[in-house]
Amino acid sequence: MTLPVFGHTNPDTDAITSAIVYASLLSRLGVTAKAYRLGDLNNETSFVLKTAGVEVPDLLEALPEGTEVALVDHNESGQSISGLSGLKVTRVVDHHKLGDLSSKDPLYLRFEPVGCTGTILGKLYREHNLPIEGWEARLMLSAILSDTLHFRSPTTTDTDREMGVYLAQIAGVTDIKAYALEMFAAKSDLGDTPADKLLKLDYKVFPFGGKQYGLGVMETTNPGYALGRKAEILEAMKQEKAAKNLEGVFFSVVDILEETNQTFVLDDAHAEVIKGVFGADTQDNVADLGNRISRKKQIVPAFEKYFG
Amino acid sequence: MTLPVFGHTNPDTDAITSAIVYASLLSRLGVTAKAYRLGDLNNETSFVLKTAGVEVPDLLEALPEGTEVALVDHNESGQSISGLSGLKVTRVVDHHKLGDLSSKDPLYLRFEPVGCTGTILGKLYREHNLPIEGWEARLMLSAILSDTLHFRSPTTTDTDREMGVYLAQIAGVTDIKAYALEMFAAKSDLGDTPADKLLKLDYKVFPFGGKQYGLGVMETTNPGYALGRKAEILEAMKQEKAAKNLEGVFFSVVDILEETNQTFVLDDAHAEVIKGVFGADTQDNVADLGNRISRKKQIVPAFEKYFG
Ligand SMILES: [Mn+2]
Ligand SMILES: [Mn+2]
Repeated sequence: MTLPVFGHTNPDTDAITSAIVYASLLSRLGVTAKAYRLGDLNNETSFVLKTAGVEVPDLLEALPEGTEVALVDHNESGQSISGLSGLKVTRVVDHHKLGDLSSKDPLYLRFEPVGCTGTILGKLYREHNLPIEGWEARLMLSAILSDTLHFRSPTTTDTDREMGVYLAQIAGVTDIKAYALEMFAAKSDLGDTPADKLLKLDYKVFPFGGKQYGLGVMETTNPGYALGRKAEILEAMKQEKAAKNLEGVFFSVVDILEETNQTFVLDDAHAEVIKGVFGADTQDNVADLGNRISRKKQIVPAFEKYFG
Repeated sequence: MTLPVFGHTNPDTDAITSAIVYASLLSRLGVTAKAYRLGDLNNETSFVLKTAGVEVPDLLEALPEGTEVALVDHNESGQSISGLSGLKVTRVVDHHKLGDLSSKDPLYLRFEPVGCTGTILGKLYREHNLPIEGWEARLMLSAILSDTLHFRSPTTTDTDREMGVYLAQIAGVTDIKAYALEMFAAKSDLGDTPADKLLKLDYKVFPFGGKQYGLGVMETTNPGYALGRKAEILEAMKQEKAAKNLEGVFFSVVDILEETNQTFVLDDAHAEVIKGVFGADTQDNVADLGNRISRKKQIVPAFEKYFG
C-alpha cells in the first residue's frame, strides 16, 4: 500500500514541498509513500519546483474511507481533504496549533513550534543520519524562506535560521537573500489572475466564537497591484461570504519587504470587527494593521482573544 | 518558570518514570522542569524508584489556570489533572492514540506507535546526542519492561526491544529477564491492599458508544490472589459504577507469565456486553478472555469496534 502524503488545501510552498520531501524521506525509511497536492500551485511554488527540477505532485480529490494517510503542514479537518475524519491518519508532521485531530490507534506525530514544516523535516533527516539530496535541501530551504518571509516573520525561530543556512549549503544556494527575492518576485507576479483566485492565494477558514471566518493573505513585494484591483477583490470576498455562508471574510495585503499589512474590509459590520480585534480604523474599505505580517502568530490569535 | 511534567492519573511505572526522565532531559536542554505524579505509586514503581535510588515525585493536585505544562504517557483530559483544558499544554511525549487534546498555539508533540513512552525518551536522548545516566537508563528500561510485559505484549515493537537492550547496558542490568521478574514480583506483592485500591491499580475510564466504562487491569504473576478476593473486588466495582455513574466496570486479572486474562463481570448486563465484545461466556462472575493481555491493543479496540 502506498501512503498518500499531502499538505493543506490552497497549498503554499511549505504544504507542497513538505509533502514531496516527507514522501521521499519515508520511502528511504522503507515506507512506500507518494506526495499529492490538494489544490493549484501558486506562482512562488511553481518557481521553486521548476528551479529544483521537481515535478508537480498529482492533485488528490478524494480517498476511500479508511485509507491510511500522512499529513504535513496542517492537522485540522477544515484545511484538509474532505472526509478526513473517515480516513486513518497515521503520521503528521506540522508546526501549527493542534485542532480537531484525533485517532483510534497510536500514531506518529511530530509537531514543533517552529516557523516551517521544512525545518522539522530537515531535523528528521539528521536524526535518521540520512544524507540530504541537493533538490531536497532546496525544497526545504524554499519552504523555510516562504513561511518565515526570509527569516523576518515573528514565527521565525533560531532553529529555522540554522536549518536554512545548513540547507542552503547543501542546495548550493550561495546568496540566500537573492534567492528569497527571486521567490518573492515570482509570488508577486500575478498578471491577470482572476480576483477570486487572488483571494484564495493563501486562504483558510477559522472558527472564531463559534462562527466561520475566511482569512486570505497576499504576501507580495508589490502591494500596489492588489490595491489597484481592490473593487474586484471586495466583490470576490462578498461572493465567497455568501457562497460559503461565512460570518466574515477578510483579505490582508502584506508587503513582505516593507513589512506592512493593509487589510480589505467588506462593510461596516466587518469594520466593527476589525476595530474590536485590532483597534484599527477602516477607510475606503482598507484597514492599516501595521506590521502584523503573520496570520498564524499575529492575526488569528488576535481574533481568538477578541471572540474569547 | 518551572514547567510541571506529569503522566496520567492512577500512574503506572511508565507514567512516573517518564515524568522524571523527561524533566531531567528538558533541564539539560535548558528548560527548567520538575516531575510530578497524579496519584499513588504501585508496588512495582516503588520498587523501580528504590532500585534506581530516585526520590518519589511530589503529588500534584491542581494548577492555576493558564499554567504551562508538559504531559507524558497520556494526552486525554479524562486521564489527566482536573482542569487540563484550562492549562496550556506546550509539550507531549506519548505512545497512545490522540484523544481530545487541542491547543491555542503551536506546540511540541512527539507521539510514536511504540510500546512505551520510555522508548521515545531514549530516542530523544540519542537525537540530542546527550549521554544517558545510569539511573535514567534504569528508569526507561523499567518502563519498557513494565509496559511491554518483558517484550511480550502485542504492543511491543522492534524499537522497544532494541532500546531496552541498549538501556540495560547503560544501566548495568546484565540479566534483563531476572530484573523483569523482580519487578513483576514486586507488582504482585499486594498484601492486604483494600479491594477498591486493587480495582484502581491500573484503571482508566473510556467513552464507548457515548457512555463511560471503567476498565481496571491487574497484571500479576499470581492471579490466584485476585481470584481469592473476587467477592470484595466485585463489591468495589459495584460501588465505583454507582459513585461515578458509569455504564459499566470491568476488572481483568492478567497473568503476565502465562499470558491469560480472567475478567471479573458484575452482573448479567455486563455479561451480555462481554459476550458481544469478545464472544466470551461468563461463569461465576468471571469471563475467560484468553490471551488478551493488552488493554490498549486488545481490550479497548474490541469495545470500540462493538460500540461503533
Ligand atoms: Mn508551514
Ligand atoms: Mn506507557
